[in-house]
Amino acid sequence: MDLSQAIRSIPDFPKKGIIFRDITTLLKDPEALKETMNRLALHYKDEKIDRIVGIESRGFIFGTPLALELGCGFILIRKPGKLPAEVVSQEYELEYGTDKLEIHKDAIETGERVLIVDDLLATGGTAEAACSLVEKVGGEIAGCAFVIELDFLEGRKKLTGRDIFSIVHY
Amino acid sequence: MDLSQAIRSIPDFPKKGIIFRDITTLLKDPEALKETMNRLALHYKDEKIDRIVGIESRGFIFGTPLALELGCGFILIRKPGKLPAEVVSQEYELEYGTDKLEIHKDAIETGERVLIVDDLLATGGTAEAACSLVEKVGGEIAGCAFVIELDFLEGRKKLTGRDIFSIVHY
Repeated sequence: MDLSQAIRSIPDFPKKGIIFRDITTLLKDPEALKETMNRLALHYKDEKIDRIVGIESRGFIFGTPLALELGCGFILIRKPGKLPAEVVSQEYELEYGTDKLEIHKDAIETGERVLIVDDLLATGGTAEAACSLVEKVGGEIAGCAFVIELDFLEGRKKLTGRDIFSIVHY
Repeated sequence: MDLSQAIRSIPDFPKKGIIFRDITTLLKDPEALKETMNRLALHYKDEKIDRIVGIESRGFIFGTPLALELGCGFILIRKPGKLPAEVVSQEYELEYGTDKLEIHKDAIETGERVLIVDDLLATGGTAEAACSLVEKVGGEIAGCAFVIELDFLEGRKKLTGRDIFSIVHY
């Protein structure tokens, strides 16, 4: 199955000149959704992974079923102020200004191997912030998994030394 | 398995006097996560359900694996400005002021039976807005599923006539 056929391209969203890759058409197609999860699970089934981390909010969509499939716990990385217990924060740069992500301080045990999951690898800023958060609370990064990778934005360069897997490339 | 044991209670979050029911401890426990999904799937396995709708963002966590388990497509209801194609909106009341949710206009075919999924039923305002959105785009509500229900807030009253299922009650 060519999963890129299930992803809709929307020109000029969120602003002029950007082609937005819309996964909602993939999600609403039961076969495409199943195939996406099968490909992720197949790639990681023989790896030692203790925890899956999903980045708010589209990382939650793919992270939870992968955690269930691999028999791991699922951990949330969220925007500021959403997690109720003690958190660790990480700022990261956007095109204009900065943003911040948080993880619960007790989310991960020291030395646990953690797979980061998000829908999209663009410039890599969000994913690198997520890796830093996991390391700050004692985890080891097993890899970073994405449904879509925008190759021309070279997000991999920001994630040098990390193991990266993406299903669909643009 | 008593799933309430896997949910952490945090006093005074997000403000004084509120006991926040924290599902992150349930999510990071692989057995509790699996049991949660099994109970949801068991409840709906003999129902005719065409689509699962998850409400941003914690509804995404439980909605996607349930869609996979039941062989349905998964649909997103999101906060304003996040969905890239043509949307339908629904305002709803908060304790102070209003908020808004959106769904893609083409998310659901007329007459499809839709199950709404979220982590928590509190006052019912969000869930009722989600039901209205699904009906506005032509769907029929098969039911509303929650991991946690705060019985004392009487959210069921706002959802009169809807089929409601919750796993853990407070």
